[in-house]
Amino acid sequence: MIKVNIHITLKEGVLDPQGKAIEGSLSTLGYQGVGEVRVGKLIELTFADSDRAAEQVEEMCQKLLANPVIENYTYTIEDGVVQ
Amino acid sequence: MIKVNIHITLKEGVLDPQGKAIEGSLSTLGYQGVGEVRVGKLIELTFADSDRAAEQVEEMCQKLLANPVIENYTYTIEDGVVQ
Repeated sequence: MIKVNIHITLKEGVLDPQGKAIEGSLSTLGYQGVGEVRVGKLIELTFADSDRAAEQVEEMCQKLLANPVIENYTYTIEDGVVQ
Repeated sequence: MIKVNIHITLKEGVLDPQGKAIEGSLSTLGYQGVGEVRVGKLIELTFADSDRAAEQVEEMCQKLLANPVIENYTYTIEDGVVQ
């Protein structure tokens, strides 16, 4: 099995209300000096071994997992995960 | 400035309906061999330099960012980020 970790973050300039809410809450809780907060998604999936894994993960991100208009994504693939 | 990346994932055994929905959709899209999908959160924040940064981030996770009952969290701290 292959383990894939996908990090999806909003592109710069895209408004992040969830991040803003966290900023406000941290400030209310008394944390000084907190700058910008951005919230993204982390998707972990296991996948049958395949020579085309990277290509397929790229395609999954484009088609389903991320919204390429407003989001960036990066992924790492770990080979040989036993499950 | 310090840059903090926080990864929040559901603990093992906790049901992940969002992950299950992605599993179903990937299968509908024709991807064979996709195993378990788990969805987590990725929080990026900048923070004023502080000797107590790690301690404060730990506290933020416990108090606000994660739900320690059902979620695990890890974080990395990058020093000296110019902003």
